[in-house]
Amino acid sequence: MCRWLAYTGSPILLTDVLYTPAHSLIDQSLHSRLGAETTNGDGFGIGWYDAAPVPGVFRSIEPAWNDANLRELAGHVRSPLFFAHIRAAIGSAVQQTNCHPFRHGRWLWMHNGFIDGFATVKRDLVLAVDESLFPEIKGQADSEVLFYLALSFGLDDDPAAAVARAIGFAEACGRARGVQYPFQGTIATTDGKSLWAFRYSSEGKSRSLFFSRDIRAVRQLAPDREILREVSDDTRLVVSEPVGDLPGAWVEMPEASYGMVSKAGDQLLPFTPEPPPKARYGSGRVVHRRIAATRC
Amino acid sequence: MCRWLAYTGSPILLTDVLYTPAHSLIDQSLHSRLGAETTNGDGFGIGWYDAAPVPGVFRSIEPAWNDANLRELAGHVRSPLFFAHIRAAIGSAVQQTNCHPFRHGRWLWMHNGFIDGFATVKRDLVLAVDESLFPEIKGQADSEVLFYLALSFGLDDDPAAAVARAIGFAEACGRARGVQYPFQGTIATTDGKSLWAFRYSSEGKSRSLFFSRDIRAVRQLAPDREILREVSDDTRLVVSEPVGDLPGAWVEMPEASYGMVSKAGDQLLPFTPEPPPKARYGSGRVVHRRIAATRC
Amino acid sequence: MCRWLAYTGSPILLTDVLYTPAHSLIDQSLHSRLGAETTNGDGFGIGWYDAAPVPGVFRSIEPAWNDANLRELAGHVRSPLFFAHIRAAIGSAVQQTNCHPFRHGRWLWMHNGFIDGFATVKRDLVLAVDESLFPEIKGQADSEVLFYLALSFGLDDDPAAAVARAIGFAEACGRARGVQYPFQGTIATTDGKSLWAFRYSSEGKSRSLFFSRDIRAVRQLAPDREILREVSDDTRLVVSEPVGDLPGAWVEMPEASYGMVSKAGDQLLPFTPEPPPKARYGSGRVVHRRIAATRC
Amino acid sequence: MCRWLAYTGSPILLTDVLYTPAHSLIDQSLHSRLGAETTNGDGFGIGWYDAAPVPGVFRSIEPAWNDANLRELAGHVRSPLFFAHIRAAIGSAVQQTNCHPFRHGRWLWMHNGFIDGFATVKRDLVLAVDESLFPEIKGQADSEVLFYLALSFGLDDDPAAAVARAIGFAEACGRARGVQYPFQGTIATTDGKSLWAFRYSSEGKSRSLFFSRDIRAVRQLAPDREILREVSDDTRLVVSEPVGDLPGAWVEMPEASYGMVSKAGDQLLPFTPEPPPKARYGSGRVVHRRIAATRC
Repeated sequence: MCRWLAYTGSPILLTDVLYTPAHSLIDQSLHSRLGAETTNGDGFGIGWYDAAPVPGVFRSIEPAWNDANLRELAGHVRSPLFFAHIRAAIGSAVQQTNCHPFRHGRWLWMHNGFIDGFATVKRDLVLAVDESLFPEIKGQADSEVLFYLALSFGLDDDPAAAVARAIGFAEACGRARGVQYPFQGTIATTDGKSLWAFRYSSEGKSRSLFFSRDIRAVRQLAPDREILREVSDDTRLVVSEPVGDLPGAWVEMPEASYGMVSKAGDQLLPFTPEPPPKARYGSGRVVHRRIAATRC
Repeated sequence: MCRWLAYTGSPILLTDVLYTPAHSLIDQSLHSRLGAETTNGDGFGIGWYDAAPVPGVFRSIEPAWNDANLRELAGHVRSPLFFAHIRAAIGSAVQQTNCHPFRHGRWLWMHNGFIDGFATVKRDLVLAVDESLFPEIKGQADSEVLFYLALSFGLDDDPAAAVARAIGFAEACGRARGVQYPFQGTIATTDGKSLWAFRYSSEGKSRSLFFSRDIRAVRQLAPDREILREVSDDTRLVVSEPVGDLPGAWVEMPEASYGMVSKAGDQLLPFTPEPPPKARYGSGRVVHRRIAATRC
Repeated sequence: MCRWLAYTGSPILLTDVLYTPAHSLIDQSLHSRLGAETTNGDGFGIGWYDAAPVPGVFRSIEPAWNDANLRELAGHVRSPLFFAHIRAAIGSAVQQTNCHPFRHGRWLWMHNGFIDGFATVKRDLVLAVDESLFPEIKGQADSEVLFYLALSFGLDDDPAAAVARAIGFAEACGRARGVQYPFQGTIATTDGKSLWAFRYSSEGKSRSLFFSRDIRAVRQLAPDREILREVSDDTRLVVSEPVGDLPGAWVEMPEASYGMVSKAGDQLLPFTPEPPPKARYGSGRVVHRRIAATRC
Repeated sequence: MCRWLAYTGSPILLTDVLYTPAHSLIDQSLHSRLGAETTNGDGFGIGWYDAAPVPGVFRSIEPAWNDANLRELAGHVRSPLFFAHIRAAIGSAVQQTNCHPFRHGRWLWMHNGFIDGFATVKRDLVLAVDESLFPEIKGQADSEVLFYLALSFGLDDDPAAAVARAIGFAEACGRARGVQYPFQGTIATTDGKSLWAFRYSSEGKSRSLFFSRDIRAVRQLAPDREILREVSDDTRLVVSEPVGDLPGAWVEMPEASYGMVSKAGDQLLPFTPEPPPKARYGSGRVVHRRIAATRC
């Protein structure tokens, strides 16, 4: 049910991250060890930042392992911040508009997991998407709808809170329709400057997620490795499952937590979804404008 | 902006209709004469009936003219009732779920044209789709949403009225958003027994549509042509633009009209969209339940 | 490295063979148990006979497990003799012209395995293909070249001998270039009437191959199963690995053997490649004209 | 029958050349004015140089006009030397390995035109390809075989002479098989430093080809245009048909000529194919080693 990778640090050729390491993400498209499925062959996508005003996105319905164009691009595109995602579809069509990462303006978004009972709650969820954003939904994936919910609930202003509201809203809608565990998964999102990664599931058994230790510590695990010396000290990877052959380089993200990686320093914090306010109007608390106006 | 063809009659090999004639539909994918665009290369689809409980659908994002699989299928599939559509996309992604014909149960649906200002009215329109049908919408095309509106408004019970309501509703929503001419196009739909074809546009300048004359009259135009002798007397084609080399075989469908082809005989009637009732409740007329409950 | 299935018997809907059974071929595209690779996701193909002069072929570069069109076709195409193949590419491009089955006239051909060191012997092999057949080679797969060698060496006249010559020639060419075990694999071929299946490898460790027992015996394993009662007594399946849930229904093809299934009765015989004659001209034996004129 | 564009100059975002200008190459994929076909929708490709040891190549079987990934790449890839090609297939399959540009090491190659009677001469031609290069031929296009002939005949050492030998050889083989006008087309090739462009046809009616005037002169045609001021003085475009809205910016390449663009200065010279030596051995002249050893 998908695997992904997010890189932030000094500019690097994508192939050095996506293809070169042992048990690379491309290898995981055929041989995932920790994923819900061994094979993640229902399309893929990459999104990367450079000098252009919006990030580039390259998505395809072919399996990542046999795609000649992905291999070419990875050998020629260099970026200080990029996402890569390999997909194992569960229900929605194999088409580019269902491939991650999704993009809106400067934002990228990718997800490994699902909204359980999505067919029953989809209408509730898309109705809560801001009307100005509604026509931007291009595909039919639950992950994309979640992205547009987060955008509607303030991703630009307070990313962690917006994701908490989006998942909280999805959980409320699911439970209202009788779904026991409405949300499962890990999410990465970025505005091209900072990177947020979330690990959470309603059931408390979330998909695997790891982040790389401080690169200065990783270098000591393999002092001769050139690539580790080349990248800057603030380089960080977040991955569905470890890549490379240095197990000591990785820390598992705790259940129900999220991390933020930014120039100002990195943070790892607990994650709790924010349920929508019970009453539509008149709540004593000050709540987010939009979420206050929506109901499952 | 698309071309299509609908065949009903004695079972025939698809290739005899789609490839063999002069200026065939496949040729029109490269060289349309009457279409809004010369090239209709943004995917295609066929839908056909046989002994199976639902019609088969084969859709692809490749241009029809170079698709080896379409050529193969057309040479091996035989059907008494089939649709074929070639697409010229205007905005929505080139993906199978946006290719016509669309299918729901026994129904097929295809469209040449557009809902003008679709981005501004899409939310209004999908909200009017029956909640049970909502999760069935697979793509992002205006044509598919129109199909689900027609299904919501009674396609199963009274196809012509349901289409009139769907287009009437789309027009009302469009006008409410300031769109001058909300609907443009021709539509074909079938339940596997009868065939309905519509030609209408809010502007009164509709895309071209033709139906074949009684096959007994057509045979006299080319008495030696084997294929014309082989097909049954009730064989009928409806096409965006004439195929073959017998101009006398075709009658142009009048502006704002629709036709029905069935075992019980064929009909050609005026078409008028049915606007939704002004008041939500309490109308004196008995109106269709669902349309009464929706508003733009 | 690929899995395949060949069916001959009374006409059957392809889906009843390809999708319905437990551990079906489509399931094997994700979860092969006996193949060299678990995943066979680099394209697929089907070839089927009906009333048309040549068999139909539908091939795609998508994984079989997620292909909507394959599912559609399988639910609507009925045939008394068909091939299906799922591919795990090893080197050659993922493109339709490299997908099996290959077709020439009435013949279909599919292969699971490889010609080892193909890059070094490819020129030798294609030079031995009949000049009239040479332009028909459409892709770059070793399996297709082997097919054209077999056609050049008399497939039309004596299929088993032609395959023995083709493999014998490939082995001779490989060994002349220092390849230890030049050929590996299983092959199925048919002219639309009879079916030949081969299991052989230079190393003596061939890819798995099974054929179904006499259907009358299989029926006794599951007397209630409707599909087994419906098919005719002469129905036979040959498969890379067993499908369904009746292990007793299958017999493993012996190492270095081939079988023929035809109206005149079935045969299972030892298979020995036929090396090309040592001397180019003047051999005392009467040898096949073409093979006598070729050398590695 | 294809259109192409070659750019050399200061590094530029591909989109500024491929999408932005009036009647851009992407527009020509739908609306070519001077091509043999209006529509060039059978795939496309780009090849570009950057710091990597070999040029990047991105090729697809989709029409260029609707390909979302091409649009993305063009907006993010910047290069001082790149090729772009849109294809109108004539016979060979629509697959990536038949899409231009073709690459070998540092070389790129693209072609608009055909080898007439290719099926009859293909065997002759591929037999003349150097044995070490033979396994590198990936597709089935005449253009690719011509590239490998040129590589076999010395492209690395003397590009213009090698192309003259390749076309001369193709003409000799064609005429030996009764083809009146064996070669038609325009060719671009580059080693990443210099660019060679050829216009020639056996019939003397070659496909259109244009090169841009000295950019200093072009700037005077539109002094306000920013892009013209940004690019360096040695910037040069070679195109199948003019792009942009400045007809005065283009010079038609004469029939039977070739041009070379390099740091050392540009040249425009007559082009004459070099027929292979009549006698296989013993020629008094010193001829190119390989071509001396080949015969049609």
